[in-house]
Amino acid sequence: MAKINQGFLNLKENYLFIEIGRKIREYVEANPEKPIIRMGIGDVTLPLAPVVVEAMQKAASEMGVKETFRGYEDSGRGYAFLREAVAGYYGSFSAEIDADEVLISDGAKSDGGNITDIFAEDNIVVVSDPVYPVYVDSNVMNGKNLIYADATEATGFAPVVPKGQKADIIYLCSPNNPTGSVLTKAQLKEWVDYALENKAVIIYDAAYEAFISDPDLPRSIFVIENAKKCAIEIGSLSKTAGFTGTRCGYTIIPKELEFCGANGEVFNVLKIWSRRQGSKFNGVSYVTQRGAEAVFTPEGIRQTREAIAYYMQNAAIMSRTFDALGVTYTGAKNSPYIWFKCGMPSWDFFDLLLSKKQVVGTPGVGFGKNGDGWFRLTAFSTRENTEEAMKRVSELLKK
Amino acid sequence: MAKINQGFLNLKENYLFIEIGRKIREYVEANPEKPIIRMGIGDVTLPLAPVVVEAMQKAASEMGVKETFRGYEDSGRGYAFLREAVAGYYGSFSAEIDADEVLISDGAKSDGGNITDIFAEDNIVVVSDPVYPVYVDSNVMNGKNLIYADATEATGFAPVVPKGQKADIIYLCSPNNPTGSVLTKAQLKEWVDYALENKAVIIYDAAYEAFISDPDLPRSIFVIENAKKCAIEIGSLSKTAGFTGTRCGYTIIPKELEFCGANGEVFNVLKIWSRRQGSKFNGVSYVTQRGAEAVFTPEGIRQTREAIAYYMQNAAIMSRTFDALGVTYTGAKNSPYIWFKCGMPSWDFFDLLLSKKQVVGTPGVGFGKNGDGWFRLTAFSTRENTEEAMKRVSELLKK
Repeated sequence: MAKINQGFLNLKENYLFIEIGRKIREYVEANPEKPIIRMGIGDVTLPLAPVVVEAMQKAASEMGVKETFRGYEDSGRGYAFLREAVAGYYGSFSAEIDADEVLISDGAKSDGGNITDIFAEDNIVVVSDPVYPVYVDSNVMNGKNLIYADATEATGFAPVVPKGQKADIIYLCSPNNPTGSVLTKAQLKEWVDYALENKAVIIYDAAYEAFISDPDLPRSIFVIENAKKCAIEIGSLSKTAGFTGTRCGYTIIPKELEFCGANGEVFNVLKIWSRRQGSKFNGVSYVTQRGAEAVFTPEGIRQTREAIAYYMQNAAIMSRTFDALGVTYTGAKNSPYIWFKCGMPSWDFFDLLLSKKQVVGTPGVGFGKNGDGWFRLTAFSTRENTEEAMKRVSELLKK
Repeated sequence: MAKINQGFLNLKENYLFIEIGRKIREYVEANPEKPIIRMGIGDVTLPLAPVVVEAMQKAASEMGVKETFRGYEDSGRGYAFLREAVAGYYGSFSAEIDADEVLISDGAKSDGGNITDIFAEDNIVVVSDPVYPVYVDSNVMNGKNLIYADATEATGFAPVVPKGQKADIIYLCSPNNPTGSVLTKAQLKEWVDYALENKAVIIYDAAYEAFISDPDLPRSIFVIENAKKCAIEIGSLSKTAGFTGTRCGYTIIPKELEFCGANGEVFNVLKIWSRRQGSKFNGVSYVTQRGAEAVFTPEGIRQTREAIAYYMQNAAIMSRTFDALGVTYTGAKNSPYIWFKCGMPSWDFFDLLLSKKQVVGTPGVGFGKNGDGWFRLTAFSTRENTEEAMKRVSELLKK
């Protein structure tokens, strides 16, 4: 008799965004005359950059001609043209990586979720609280035990290193989803030191690095000394270049990164992950990879940075609103998220904001207990919707 | 200290096609003046159909315009337009499925590999011998135990139901990769009956269904009565429409399909798999999905069937060659693979064929012990290469 993986029974009933989606659908069905403004899920609204569209159309043409058609990639790890473009991009902010350490994926969520496959069940996994739910769910499905590093108002929502506790795998996300906080080099160095002490592996989610404008803040964990001995970095074009519906990301695994067997034998992480992908993945669409390559050209950087500047102007509108309201928040600087104290349980505020003002956000408690009483809004909406939503939020929160 | 999943240590050293790739690279480096003909890995050579290219270019244009841009899919299970197209296609060969039972993936290999995630480790997995290596590797990585159903010359390489033995999960592939054999309705019904008896789940790989021209052979397991109570079907556009480098497939999970918990509680497979995908996958590129939709239009079917007819003419050239040589084989009818008795250990023949005739095929033993002494060639090459390769094979095998 076919039996379910019991790990699935330990998951919370609904994935956060599915639950939010359900509540929105119910509201819209009951109130079809009231248009809602969505600032919940971190989806982008601006179209793909012209250079990306052109590159994809050209690649689609090539696929229609026998001489330039491409079938399977040899390795499934990504074409050299794109792996080299990513390595070059990292070089531009002083993170030295080799193109052979870059693996192209169909998005940060796939690799971020699947990476647990290569780790034994009895690893102790550290995540922050609040946390992006995918890190938790993918490990719970996999039967792993989690411990939580608190991130609270007191620390500006930077997760605190659990000194004295053992850890094997550590998830970090900076700029953080959901709190918008960004780890400083000093804070990140503490985590690297802790990982090296524990021979732990850090899985560093850098999906929002492109939103960092402060040159003193690290855009990659690999700007920290010795990070290549203890870290995997996951990147994404979803927010960098509006690829949420186009699906392309990358995972960087340093050649020197190692983990061990049950008897202390040493294995190379890049080699084992490549073996996993060789059996369970066949690479990313050639058309998509050509679009992604275009993102990293000088013109692609210029065009995609225009979109980011637009979103960061939205973020500035939000931060001015909360400043005026005297409401405490993190994020909105070097990050497309604003995370504010909503003054009541998060789901209550979700329901209030939806029913009174038809604005959708994300309840902080959906990301962990430390998120209760907090609420996330994204800067990815249109200017008009951002301004309108801030007007409505002000009406709701004005004393 | 981060520890490796011990399942990876039970894998054979190299994934078959990676090993073949290595041997080819070494030969080419040592003999750069001798061009080789590749009939090993099942990659296609004809370009994408014009309707597919047009649809992808149109979709890329839409992605560059704010009003028609698409971000995340709501569900990540595929757009309704494509799920409905797949359901309609199945209806055309009398397999009744609902669009809600179709989940769009980035290829059969991803879903086929990841599906093990939702099953407990202590399920007994049945695969055929010879077998497509991904089924074995993904289960070994996952710590599951396998038993083998023999497929031999005596049965025309149809796997024999292991009556009397218990099974929980069963992998079937028809038309078969690597042997080219196709299960008849009667043979498939035996497997369905066996699965129902054992409350097992069949994972049915239908990646090559489009190559079936005999109307009496089943193109989907869902034409067999009660199969919806015991089967998942995995499909692919890789061979149907030349999508090996474009990456799109689908997984069909009937709504009524169930499996159980450790205490016999009952769970819905579609719901659990959707939960897995909701946490570890974010859907397939919109551009790719529009290209896939075009495959299922009348004009798309016409254009892609032209390519399949071309490959099947290659297969006919191969079968005539082996008929003339008096060499025993399966496949080449209703299948793009030919599987022949090579008269020596498979890897010896691989080396001989490469070194003497510069033709690359796949050693049968790479697919399991019953494959030793057998060899696979694919019909996906060009006409010229197929003819030239058959000339060389004839020279080598002529008595």
